[in-house]
Amino acid sequence: MMEILITELDVKDIRFPTSLLADGSDAMHTDPDYSCAYVTIKTNKGIEGYGLTFTLGRGTEIVVQACKSMFYLVKGQNANEIFAHFGSFWRKLTSEPQLRWIGPEKGVIHLATAAIINALWDLWARIENKPVWKLLTDLTPEQLVSTIDFRYITDVITEEEAVELLKVNQKDKEKREEILRKTGYPAYTTQVGWLGYSNDKVKELCTKFLALGFTSFKVKVGQNLTDDIRRCQLVRETIGYKNKLMLDANQIWSINESIEWMKKLAKFKPTWIEEPTSPDDVLGHLKIANELKPYGIGIATGEMCANRVMFKQLLQARAIDYCQIDSARIGGINEILAVYLMAKKLGVPVCPHAGGVGLCEMVQHLQMWDFICLSASTENRVIEYIDQQHEHFEDPVVVQNACYMPPISPGYSTKFNENCIKNYSYPNGEKWRNMYEQGLFHKLSD
Amino acid sequence: MMEILITELDVKDIRFPTSLLADGSDAMHTDPDYSCAYVTIKTNKGIEGYGLTFTLGRGTEIVVQACKSMFYLVKGQNANEIFAHFGSFWRKLTSEPQLRWIGPEKGVIHLATAAIINALWDLWARIENKPVWKLLTDLTPEQLVSTIDFRYITDVITEEEAVELLKVNQKDKEKREEILRKTGYPAYTTQVGWLGYSNDKVKELCTKFLALGFTSFKVKVGQNLTDDIRRCQLVRETIGYKNKLMLDANQIWSINESIEWMKKLAKFKPTWIEEPTSPDDVLGHLKIANELKPYGIGIATGEMCANRVMFKQLLQARAIDYCQIDSARIGGINEILAVYLMAKKLGVPVCPHAGGVGLCEMVQHLQMWDFICLSASTENRVIEYIDQQHEHFEDPVVVQNACYMPPISPGYSTKFNENCIKNYSYPNGEKWRNMYEQGLFHKLSD
Repeated sequence: MMEILITELDVKDIRFPTSLLADGSDAMHTDPDYSCAYVTIKTNKGIEGYGLTFTLGRGTEIVVQACKSMFYLVKGQNANEIFAHFGSFWRKLTSEPQLRWIGPEKGVIHLATAAIINALWDLWARIENKPVWKLLTDLTPEQLVSTIDFRYITDVITEEEAVELLKVNQKDKEKREEILRKTGYPAYTTQVGWLGYSNDKVKELCTKFLALGFTSFKVKVGQNLTDDIRRCQLVRETIGYKNKLMLDANQIWSINESIEWMKKLAKFKPTWIEEPTSPDDVLGHLKIANELKPYGIGIATGEMCANRVMFKQLLQARAIDYCQIDSARIGGINEILAVYLMAKKLGVPVCPHAGGVGLCEMVQHLQMWDFICLSASTENRVIEYIDQQHEHFEDPVVVQNACYMPPISPGYSTKFNENCIKNYSYPNGEKWRNMYEQGLFHKLSD
Repeated sequence: MMEILITELDVKDIRFPTSLLADGSDAMHTDPDYSCAYVTIKTNKGIEGYGLTFTLGRGTEIVVQACKSMFYLVKGQNANEIFAHFGSFWRKLTSEPQLRWIGPEKGVIHLATAAIINALWDLWARIENKPVWKLLTDLTPEQLVSTIDFRYITDVITEEEAVELLKVNQKDKEKREEILRKTGYPAYTTQVGWLGYSNDKVKELCTKFLALGFTSFKVKVGQNLTDDIRRCQLVRETIGYKNKLMLDANQIWSINESIEWMKKLAKFKPTWIEEPTSPDDVLGHLKIANELKPYGIGIATGEMCANRVMFKQLLQARAIDYCQIDSARIGGINEILAVYLMAKKLGVPVCPHAGGVGLCEMVQHLQMWDFICLSASTENRVIEYIDQQHEHFEDPVVVQNACYMPPISPGYSTKFNENCIKNYSYPNGEKWRNMYEQGLFHKLSD
């Protein structure tokens, strides 16, 4: 095995001033500045890996600190040794006996884990000269499963069962890869319904995305029922009832409110209500799911689901009808693969959360692997798409006819271009210094 | 209302080199250096508040950064305004629209919340010139309930129900306060069974704590079944079967392992098995509880339970028989009161987790309030006690005849003495500099 020594790790605080335009605002996150902690892994062979975790502005400095505190676990390692025993390396990272106290496997420390693990997968894919989706699909079932830590999930899936699930669809992999390369993977848009948008803007955006070929549209709800009804009406008038409408409450409701509020929106025939309540409330989601089933409304959640143990329970209890994995909250690809495998075993389709900085770039790889190797289906499956911040990446997503096209360049598609880092490094990037001068933002003292 | 302006906040990284003696080692946390992030709140009246959150060494710097990032929400506020609307202030702190993304309400950001909120309660108690338990017991039911944010828990308890629960035992409060002042609140010891301890040490400590009047003893298990059997045997031989034995696995097992392992220890008649598996696994704990019920073994967990929503589910599902609140992981007293109220309503006794830096100092106040105002009972209830790090506090716990005696000084009992800060500030405190010189610890570069 060739030794590729990890010689150095670096993390940057990158922030975009999205609060100026109210892009990305929702019921709970009213003025986000889309941001990330951006990790670079350097090796003695010159090859590098880039990974990130998404944040909303303030607090990125905390995740940056957490990355720095974890680097000692990675520095000096042979990258190929890590990849050969990736499951146990992942456990080493998440079970560091002093650091695990401040998680465990949740919040800041797990976001930092995601940034580092994502950078390692990017590095691996670059070493193999493949995009991550292709790296994943070319692994044997045994190799793929060896990257996963099964601690706490063996009551739902074992290593052996996971290998069996992957073996089922080995034979037609090339056929599905061909389909992807030709037509891509279906996307849905969240851009028609941010809470801050006016009527005209909603209508105009619906028309625009219809023309682009989109058939699934998501609208934010939960702050004001009258306003929700008005906007749902508006969207349905424009997109009709052949297309799909999804709703997203971003955790604003209690259990009973979720049920009552959604009954009043049921006439708009939403496919799902996303994040009705606390992301931690498995039993709450189950109650909501049972109450809304007669109305044909499914439950979706996952973007704030803390880890595979929480996903396990949501899936076990059948508390969700759509599993929304996120590429940067749980501990990177290794843990996300575990969630895909549990979802497959328990028959719940995965519809990835995306839209934050680099999330579209990452989840496309995972969902394409799922299509080629695991679920072999796009039925009831669709990837979120938001057209924001893609211009900052060297290898941004390509969406054609409302479908994600498979990335071609090696890696995980989240390497920033040089200008982005120069401009949006926080707090001293060029754009930030301009904004302080213009009085648009107040520079915090360190 | 008098204005008491919060003029400044400060946070320190305080660490004790406990890994040198293997004190506090368990199956998952093999070499902890007991530590804390220590918050001081300064006011324009000279009066100050002190609060902390417990950590295990590495990672404290991350929690310190999180405290700093949150201080802007507190600085410049009128303390008395905060206390008059404490529930909504608590929500403001935990729902900051950018910061909440990196939780929400869990991990690092929630540990930092705890340190700040604990310091605010300490400040309030010092302003009122009372220990926190007395401040709590003197609040009317309505005042006490107004400190709680009921978001996400109204399906189990509403504000009105909480007030009703508190009204039930108002009349005999003085009688119970008198009992406490006379005899204190029962403690149990965890000091007989750390994994790193030798046979002789275990036996010697059992004898010592028996002589001190202890009747409940906890032993760490989970790394090696043969060794667990040997140590349980040893403890039972010394303490007999009239006294209580509790076991603690610190999350080492899967669901099925928990069940199988505990069946093999059932003959030692443990009162509970604590933290058998992931603290996030409500459904897993439920399965373990159901399987071990026929053996008379209860389930205890809570020290790593992320927030009131997770506690709600553990209680709702009857996945636990003993609710182990922690004073520094969930968001301070306000949120802990919500857990006590849910536990009371659902009939589960609370047995606080303690032993880490300042945890004994804090939980005694809460459990004493519970006895006086809410449960009015010590049946099946006991507070963990470990005799470590108390000497660093100005107002350390007093344990007599295996009972916590009610604190007399104003505040929450977690103000460090000056020597402690001078010696154990990390990385540059005097003791730390001595240890670097002696080669006992390696100083990390910043």
